[in-house]
This record gives sequence, C-alpha cells and structure tokens, in this order.
Amino acid sequence: MAHLSIIGTGNMGQAISGLAAKGGNSVELMNSTETKPVTGDIVILAVPYGSVADVIAQRGEQLAGKIVVDITNPLNFETFDGLTVPADGSAAAVIAAALPQSTVLKAFNTNFGGTLVAGTVGAETTTVLIAGDDADAKALLAGVVTAAGLKAVDAGSLKRARELEAIGFLQITLAAAEKITWTGGLAVTN
Amino acid sequence: MAHLSIIGTGNMGQAISGLAAKGGNSVELMNSTETKPVTGDIVILAVPYGSVADVIAQRGEQLAGKIVVDITNPLNFETFDGLTVPADGSAAAVIAAALPQSTVLKAFNTNFGGTLVAGTVGAETTTVLIAGDDADAKALLAGVVTAAGLKAVDAGSLKRARELEAIGFLQITLAAAEKITWTGGLAVTN
Repeated sequence: MAHLSIIGTGNMGQAISGLAAKGGNSVELMNSTETKPVTGDIVILAVPYGSVADVIAQRGEQLAGKIVVDITNPLNFETFDGLTVPADGSAAAVIAAALPQSTVLKAFNTNFGGTLVAGTVGAETTTVLIAGDDADAKALLAGVVTAAGLKAVDAGSLKRARELEAIGFLQITLAAAEKITWTGGLAVTN
Repeated sequence: MAHLSIIGTGNMGQAISGLAAKGGNSVELMNSTETKPVTGDIVILAVPYGSVADVIAQRGEQLAGKIVVDITNPLNFETFDGLTVPADGSAAAVIAAALPQSTVLKAFNTNFGGTLVAGTVGAETTTVLIAGDDADAKALLAGVVTAAGLKAVDAGSLKRARELEAIGFLQITLAAAEKITWTGGLAVTN
C-alpha cells in the first residue's frame, strides 16, 4: 500500500484517485490552488503541462525525496501539430531536471481517463505504461495500478518518456479527429 | 483493387504480400537484390531502414509517380536506446525528401508481422495506422488493408510518422524486453 497525493482534480486526477483508492491505498486529492503541503510518498502531477511549472515553483522543496509522477501530454494546442517540449526530450525530462531531488516517473499519459475508470480499453484490460530510472519507484506505482485490477508495464528508462509522449500525442489527435473514441485508444496486449 | 510491388522478402514483406493477395490485389514480391523494374502502383519498401538508401539509389526514377510505403523502424540497434533519424523528423520524412516525385506514406511500422498474418492483436482486430499527405493514396492503401479483414486508421499527415516511429520503437523495446510478445503489442480500439 502507498500514500498518494494527487494535485489536480480534473478528469485524470479524479480517475487516478479512484484507481488508487480502489486498490486500498490512501489518497489525498487536492486542487492545484491548494496550499497545504503534500503528504504522499507518491505525488501525481495531474495538471496540464502548462501548469506544472507553477506547481514546481510552489512545491518544489516538498517534493524532495518523493516519487513524482508526470502524466502530461505537452501538446501545442494552438497548432495541434506538435509538442511544446524538445523533440529529443520530454515533459518528464524537463520536470526531472527541475526536481533533481525527486524520483520522476512518466505514467498514465497514454491512458484516457475513462479507460482508467472502466479498467478496459476495448476488450482489453487497461495497461498503464510506466517509464523511469528507479526500478523500486516503478514497482511501487505498478503495485498501485495492479491492485485496482489494471495492468502495468515497465516501459523502460525515463528517456522512453519521449516515446510515451508521442503515443499520448498521436492518441489525442486520433480521438480529436474521431478516428477513435475517448473511451478507447491504444491497448497493450500480450 | 491495386497492384503492389513489395521489395523485401523478410517477415514483413511476406506478411504484407499475404495480406494484399488475400484481399484480391495483385502482388509482385521481390528480393531487394532483384533488378527487374517495379510495376506496382503501390511500392512497399519492406527492407530495414539501413537498406532503404540503396533501394532508392537503384530504383529512385522507377518510383516517380508511385505511392511508396515506408514501413521502417529506424532504431539504433547498437544502443537500442534511440532512433537514427532526426528527433523532430522521421524515416518517412527522409525518404519523402529523397523521392520528391513519389507519394510517400508511413504504414505498417506499428504492426508486428505476426499480427498482420493473424489479423488480430490480442482480442482486437489488427489496425494499420497510415500517415501521409495525400488522402487518395491513404485511402487506396487503407482499401488494401480492409479488403483483407484488418482495420486501417488515417493517422494524419506524414509529419505524424514521427509519432508512429516512436510507437514502433517503444513496441520493439517492449517485445525485446519480453514485456509483450511478438504476436501482441499495441492494439487500436474504439
């Protein structure tokens, strides 16, 4: 069991809170404007990428020693044709550079909120892809996911966040173009 | 119906040939060392990315006016930790620049050969993601795919090849690490 702080009460914050609570973990869910210090061992940054810098500015010191999970898809929403982070990097890499005393993971960005709530994507169990450089941190987060009946797959080092963000980006463009639904998307199968 | 030339007789060349023939299209499958001119309206470059330049050097003029399909995943197989094409570009963009008189599409690189043969990924019908700048060309290739009982999804402009190659890359690393099987992988669901 883990203790999670989830910053951001939107679609994804709610879905991840529900998932964590379902698996028997303790959860504090807080609005991004909340000023109370976070108490979780795992902190989920469930805010849009454009708001992450503010959260880090406000809470950077509190996040030292914690597992910080970046779930963002840093799309350029003006052009809908690219990302706002360096092409050879990722939002997760930017966040990890800003939080050198935290263990940063990339996760949940390839999952639409509805698939976390339903536990399924099409006929498949929802799989959360987790990238990061700390195996223990990845295993702890994977345990949160699997305790809720979903699957977790270790997607490799934090460098693979580049690829996870490409997947998240493509998936959003497919849903926006109505090629897939927001309750579907990419499923990971064996 | 279309007439396809498939250059490359490996796993993927065979799978795409079988798929195209199954759907009632005419297919010529040739080894990459074959010197006979291609006759297909659609030419599939089913060779490793490292061999594409040779094919283009040999056949560039023959490919003018044709639909050329890039299926490659340009992994750096020494490091297994990145791609050999620019991070903000793609193999497809490199190929399109080398073949300005061809209509280049990116397709099949997110499908393992086995899933093209089986027609399924897990419990889902195999979906071929197709990116390109020419809607008619994409529709023609999609018709080849759907005639064989698979699904095709328009993944957007050729620029989205960057994201398709990121998906292909991640999927290969997951299979190589035995997180998924070579008969599974990412499925597209509605």
